[in-house]
Amino acid sequence: MEERDRNASDLLERAIAALRTRGHFSAFPELPSGKIYGEGAREEGQRAFEAHLERPFRLDQPTSGAWLGGEESPYGFPLGIRYPAPDPDGMIKAALSALPRWRDCGVERRAEVCLDILERLNRRSFELAYAVMHTTGQGFVMAFQAGGPHAQDRGLEALACAVDLMRRTPARALWEKRVGRDEVARFDKRYRIAPRGLALVIGCSTFPTWNSYPALFADLATGNPVLVKPHPRAVLPLALTVQIARQALDDAGFDPNLVQLVVDSEGEPIAKSLATRPEVRLIDFTGSSAFGNWLEQHCPQAAVFTEKSGVNSVVVDSTDDFRGMVRNLAFSLSLYAGQMCTTPQNIFVPASGIATDQGHKGFEEVAGALVEAVDRLLADPKRAVEVLGCIQNPATVERIDRVARAAGSAVLRPSAPLVHPEHPKARVHTPLLVQAESGEEELYLQELFGPIAFVIEADSTADAIARAAKAAREKGAITASVYSTREEVLADMERAMLECGVALSENLTGGVYVNQSAAFSDFHATGLNPAANASLVDEAFVAPRFHVVQLRRPLGG
Amino acid sequence: MEERDRNASDLLERAIAALRTRGHFSAFPELPSGKIYGEGAREEGQRAFEAHLERPFRLDQPTSGAWLGGEESPYGFPLGIRYPAPDPDGMIKAALSALPRWRDCGVERRAEVCLDILERLNRRSFELAYAVMHTTGQGFVMAFQAGGPHAQDRGLEALACAVDLMRRTPARALWEKRVGRDEVARFDKRYRIAPRGLALVIGCSTFPTWNSYPALFADLATGNPVLVKPHPRAVLPLALTVQIARQALDDAGFDPNLVQLVVDSEGEPIAKSLATRPEVRLIDFTGSSAFGNWLEQHCPQAAVFTEKSGVNSVVVDSTDDFRGMVRNLAFSLSLYAGQMCTTPQNIFVPASGIATDQGHKGFEEVAGALVEAVDRLLADPKRAVEVLGCIQNPATVERIDRVARAAGSAVLRPSAPLVHPEHPKARVHTPLLVQAESGEEELYLQELFGPIAFVIEADSTADAIARAAKAAREKGAITASVYSTREEVLADMERAMLECGVALSENLTGGVYVNQSAAFSDFHATGLNPAANASLVDEAFVAPRFHVVQLRRPLGG
Repeated sequence: MEERDRNASDLLERAIAALRTRGHFSAFPELPSGKIYGEGAREEGQRAFEAHLERPFRLDQPTSGAWLGGEESPYGFPLGIRYPAPDPDGMIKAALSALPRWRDCGVERRAEVCLDILERLNRRSFELAYAVMHTTGQGFVMAFQAGGPHAQDRGLEALACAVDLMRRTPARALWEKRVGRDEVARFDKRYRIAPRGLALVIGCSTFPTWNSYPALFADLATGNPVLVKPHPRAVLPLALTVQIARQALDDAGFDPNLVQLVVDSEGEPIAKSLATRPEVRLIDFTGSSAFGNWLEQHCPQAAVFTEKSGVNSVVVDSTDDFRGMVRNLAFSLSLYAGQMCTTPQNIFVPASGIATDQGHKGFEEVAGALVEAVDRLLADPKRAVEVLGCIQNPATVERIDRVARAAGSAVLRPSAPLVHPEHPKARVHTPLLVQAESGEEELYLQELFGPIAFVIEADSTADAIARAAKAAREKGAITASVYSTREEVLADMERAMLECGVALSENLTGGVYVNQSAAFSDFHATGLNPAANASLVDEAFVAPRFHVVQLRRPLGG
Repeated sequence: MEERDRNASDLLERAIAALRTRGHFSAFPELPSGKIYGEGAREEGQRAFEAHLERPFRLDQPTSGAWLGGEESPYGFPLGIRYPAPDPDGMIKAALSALPRWRDCGVERRAEVCLDILERLNRRSFELAYAVMHTTGQGFVMAFQAGGPHAQDRGLEALACAVDLMRRTPARALWEKRVGRDEVARFDKRYRIAPRGLALVIGCSTFPTWNSYPALFADLATGNPVLVKPHPRAVLPLALTVQIARQALDDAGFDPNLVQLVVDSEGEPIAKSLATRPEVRLIDFTGSSAFGNWLEQHCPQAAVFTEKSGVNSVVVDSTDDFRGMVRNLAFSLSLYAGQMCTTPQNIFVPASGIATDQGHKGFEEVAGALVEAVDRLLADPKRAVEVLGCIQNPATVERIDRVARAAGSAVLRPSAPLVHPEHPKARVHTPLLVQAESGEEELYLQELFGPIAFVIEADSTADAIARAAKAAREKGAITASVYSTREEVLADMERAMLECGVALSENLTGGVYVNQSAAFSDFHATGLNPAANASLVDEAFVAPRFHVVQLRRPLGG
């Protein structure tokens, strides 16, 4: 075994072990540092990104012959990249004809190739970071981390879970059973892992890699060829991913058509017609509730895994670190301008105020401190744009305006555009904070994607918990957060979030935020409320992607 | 720990280990012997069965107040048992209110209670055997084995798989990550297994317990309350199961409404309205393709697991044990009069005949030997009725007549009624064997449930394999069988069955039959062709029944 192979296989075993302890584990360094990735890696990545601009993106896969592409960087320029338009029939045929060899090479060989893809992706992390930054609008560091190493870790997590589940069934068994006084039936049984079929992974515009890699690697590891359909506004990160995967497959002697890119346009979307094809047996989707629900309802031939929208809540009851709490919340609201499915939207505070290490704080004081903390965090424009990034979709800016107009005098903190020091045309906007009463559900009981948050006067802590649970039950939620110095309140919130299936963070006051979800330790979404029917990465996310076909043969007496 | 508990927990660990080796394992003795189950156990079981006849069956669960029941023993008498008619709203409410305590008691406690249910079922195996015999029409020994210990083994298998999968996620983790030069974030993380929600298990009329126990125990083990809806012609075995489970739950201090029986009638079926309830999040079904497909298409709120109908094939290429082959096939065709989803229907034999240890045999000779072997197997009526059992559904008798009329002179062996020595009114019919040509797909390329088989003249072995694969691909198949002395033929058949996802048995000539599927070793169905979207018991059958809800809390520096 060569050194590289030994390291790779060791990495896989460590990843598998990490899933059983769920402590901190990461395979791919998250610091965008030249010391780790090589001197000049950042500049090299930037040049590589820029080399893609204003050109056709070559992928040697079935195509209609036309070219598609209309990506615009939220930093204020068109990417000008054109991608080969799909030939769905040709792609499906090519994918299915690549299936048998990929299936037959076995679990361990597929795992090796998947690991190689992940390692190649990791080496291209800076290039991917710029691709993510200029499609999603994320700040550079976040684009690097979430789009690069963190996404790769999530992919490795899915790979590890898949390998571990597939290894549960032995390749072979000796079955011996006494079937008569002197007769023993002896059988040689063989078990073959068989993929479910063709897989379709539909990416989103805000986390094109992070939200797609778990499905991509779970599918590939279990033997399914994959069609990757990126969001038309965030194609490049997945186009690069597909290109890298195809190269790795080809180098390993497999048909690169095991991974193909299906590009469409907002005017002529292809997802519905593709998702309902009888050949498509697995669908993973991240995006709107409307389309996620449509997929769940209209694709009975496929196992459908969705992550949709939701309304995440914070319940503030009391704290022994008031300053840490508001600072932590301010960052959570501001990070990537709230364009995360994990960003809190509704912050419930009892109308009578809360007990803190700085004495009693009235509702207004808590709201005021939160506004002040956001202002302070974003005071330096250079730092602010790194935290906020850009608004991915112009519709989000309209949404901010609409909510602000409707709120009128209830606006606690207006959203404002911010001029990016390096990208004057970038679409940067600070968070809008609105005050509401807990009865005003028509205002806050809906997902308002983007930098929009409500500070809500609850009748009591119990009312706050009940409202947070109702939002999760009816609209879905991926995260919840609670601040309290009282164990009984924490227990009440825990029980409520268990009932509606929401991951809960308690008393976050330091450098970990409710928005963050760490591979190998944190489950992302639960699959138990309307925000998602799946969880990254639990066994239910992986196991339906394969079955077992067995052969049995009697052995001579 | 008491002796009983230690044995129980040891049994669970052995069952879990057995799934990883897939050798022979059985927890519940399959011999209906007084030496094992106690002297007089059979008579006691018969008396217990008879005590249910002509009476109301008491279950203290929500009911409309009406009584339902029209079961007829295929052995020729009405059971006269009346069951409480369901109150669906009341039952759903009761089930959901029982959920939290069952969820919160944890994996190991639920496993203990499930094991206790299985052991109680095992002690009632003779009573269950008579209940299965007089609803399904199986012969006594089969009713005992398949309805009792084998079903219990399948339930234990599902329980073991569920416990093993749930144990993969630890209850707690310490997460430590360096987040700055001198700062380490330390978190206490807790993980709670959360059930998917209310489960519905829809039983079939031929194997009411065997086909339901995997779902019942997978659901219960993962924390889901279960509504058990038996087939209206085979209620008693599941009514007893539910009664026993409720008693065990009650004795363990849990709400018995975690398991409820939903009885309906053929005139007013309830499954559709129940299956589409938003509260129902898991559905398991065994039965017709029409209804199975309906469930897959109309219940997007639920994970739907189906086992439907199919067309199983045998490919005969050559054999070194001609006598063993025809004897084995004759038994497979006759067992329970072909009313198994695993019974072969289409036996492909090359028109040019086959090589055997008795020299070359022409097609006619092979067909003739098969007819003769069936005749010989069923020559003694006393033995014949034990093998054949009764025809469960009168519609099956009509089907035999219809196929025989259509076949005309192609009938190789007519089906005939047989007078049961002990039950003169019993509906006993011997197998119909029909000759066909491989082009006559309109005859044999459809499921003809019951004792109906075709001996089909194939152009060649390759044609036979291709036809078998086509049937599996288009109509579904749960089993396949091949006879050949040539490794390359076996390899071709293996490849073909892998492609269409069918478990393959090779060269069965002894006391193991293609119809049989052993818990802990054989996967029953694959989920990869139209006969079933699920496999008993693989990880995909169990994992979607639960998710994980996590809590995280910072630990003091």
